[in-house]
Amino acid sequence: MTGVSGDLTRLSLNQETIKQWSLPELAEGCVKAGVPGVGLWRAPVQEYGVEAAARLIRDAGLAVTSLCRGGFFTAIDPTERAAALADNRAAIDEAATLGTDTLILVSGGLPPGSRDLTAARERIADALAELAPYAADHGVRLAIEPLHPMYASDRCVVSTLAQALDLAERFPADQVGVVVDTYHLWWDDTVAAQIARAGAGGRLASFQLADWITPLPEGVLLGRGQLGDGSVDFRWFREHVDATGFDGPIEVEIFNPALWARDGAEVLAEVADRYRTLVL
Amino acid sequence: MTGVSGDLTRLSLNQETIKQWSLPELAEGCVKAGVPGVGLWRAPVQEYGVEAAARLIRDAGLAVTSLCRGGFFTAIDPTERAAALADNRAAIDEAATLGTDTLILVSGGLPPGSRDLTAARERIADALAELAPYAADHGVRLAIEPLHPMYASDRCVVSTLAQALDLAERFPADQVGVVVDTYHLWWDDTVAAQIARAGAGGRLASFQLADWITPLPEGVLLGRGQLGDGSVDFRWFREHVDATGFDGPIEVEIFNPALWARDGAEVLAEVADRYRTLVL
Repeated sequence: MTGVSGDLTRLSLNQETIKQWSLPELAEGCVKAGVPGVGLWRAPVQEYGVEAAARLIRDAGLAVTSLCRGGFFTAIDPTERAAALADNRAAIDEAATLGTDTLILVSGGLPPGSRDLTAARERIADALAELAPYAADHGVRLAIEPLHPMYASDRCVVSTLAQALDLAERFPADQVGVVVDTYHLWWDDTVAAQIARAGAGGRLASFQLADWITPLPEGVLLGRGQLGDGSVDFRWFREHVDATGFDGPIEVEIFNPALWARDGAEVLAEVADRYRTLVL
Repeated sequence: MTGVSGDLTRLSLNQETIKQWSLPELAEGCVKAGVPGVGLWRAPVQEYGVEAAARLIRDAGLAVTSLCRGGFFTAIDPTERAAALADNRAAIDEAATLGTDTLILVSGGLPPGSRDLTAARERIADALAELAPYAADHGVRLAIEPLHPMYASDRCVVSTLAQALDLAERFPADQVGVVVDTYHLWWDDTVAAQIARAGAGGRLASFQLADWITPLPEGVLLGRGQLGDGSVDFRWFREHVDATGFDGPIEVEIFNPALWARDGAEVLAEVADRYRTLVL
C-alpha cells in the first residue's frame, strides 16, 4: 500500500464526508487508507472533547487541515453579534488546540426581514476586524469561504471568490485568507482569474473538493456529489490552484446521505481512488 | 379603478404565474385587473393554437411582452443541434405571430458527461449566429436570460448578466439582448454595473420579477416567491434598470404551486398590490 498511497500526501478527508464514523474510527480509517490529513467540525469535536480529539488525531500521526466553522457574522442585533463574536473566539481557541492554522468561516446570510446584501457584507468586515488579530495571536488564520449563490439569503452573503477576496484583502494575508471549494465555485467563469489573484496575494487558505450533481434535494444542503459523479472538472481546478504555488492539503468535503449510509472504509477507498484518477 | 390602475401601465403578467388560468381566463383577468401586458409560454399557446392565441390577446387589447422560450443550444450531437435550431426557428415564427418582439432564451446546460462550460458557452454563440438574422427578419429579438448558478449544469450555463452580455455583444444590439430577472441575479454584487452596461449598449430586452425565498424545494424549479415574500429589493432593481433609460414592460414571472392553488384573480390583485408598493 505504501507505494500506491504515496500520491495521497496532500489528501485530507473532511469528517462530514464520512460522518457515520466516530472520531476514533476516523483516525483509524485514515491511517489505514494512507490519508494523512483530516478536516474537523466543531460539534463532533466538542462532543468528544477538544483536548482528547487533539490528542487522538496527533497520536495517529494525522494533520488537522481545517476546522469548520466560524462565521455567521451578519446579525444586526447587538446581543446576537456579541454572541457570534464570542463563539468565534471559542472556535479560534479550539482550532489552536487542535493544531490547525485554518478556521473556515461561513459568513452568514441576511438577517430576518433584511434585503441589504451590501450592509451584511460590511458587518462581516467589522467582525473580521475584531477577530483577525485574536486569531493571529493563536496561530490561526480566518478563511472566508464563498458559498454557492443559492445560499446567499440564509447562510452566506459571500457568493464568489472575488467577494471573498474583496473582504480578505482589507486585512493582512497571514490573518485572513479564502477557501476555494469546487462545489461553490465551479460555475463561475471568473474563477480562474480569482484563484490567480488569491495565490498572488498569499490568500489561498484551503482547497476543498465536492462534485455538483442534480437534482438538488429540498433545502439544497445535502446534495453534494462524490468526485466524478457530476459536473466539476477537478483536474482543471487543481492545476489552477497549484499554478499559484499552492502546495497545501486538498480536502474532500461531501455532504451526501448516500455516502453516509455506506461502509466508511469503502467510501474512503472510493474517495482516494477518484482523487488519484480525477484530481492528480 | 382607473385611477388606481393607472400606475400599472408597465406591468405584465407572465402566464406561468397564474398557470391555473386558461388563455381566455388570462386575457379576461388581465383586462379586469387593468394589467396591460402578458408574457406567454409556447406550450399553452401551441395547445390553444398560435393564431387563435394571437387574436385572443390582441382583441383583448393586451400586449404580448415576451414569449418563453427558445434556447437549449448546448447539445454536441449534430442531430440534436439541428433539432434545437429548427425548434428555435419555430419559436421565432410563433413570437412573430403573437406580435411580440422578444423571445426569451434559456440557453441550455452541460450535455451528459461533459464538464466543459466554456465549450458549451461557445456553442450558444454558434447557435445565436445562425438564429439572430432569422429572428431579425421576423421582427424578433433574441433575449439571453442568465439563470441562477444553481441551474448551470442542467438548464443554463449562462449564470451572470456579465456572461449574457459577453455573448450578446458579439451580435447587433437589435438582434440579441439580455433579460434581467431578479430571481436569478439578486445575489450578484456586480449586477448594478452590468445593468448599466446592458442599458448603455441597448441590450436590455426584458425585465422580470420574482422573489427569492427559502427553503428551496427539491429540484429548485418551483420555489420562486411572490413579490415581497423574500430577499429581493425590487425598488433597487427597478431604479437601476430605469436609470439606463429603459421604460419597457416589467413582467412578473413566479413559479410557485402555492400561487397556482389559489384563485387567479386574487393572485393577480396581490401581484398588482405588491407591484405598486414594492416596485414603483
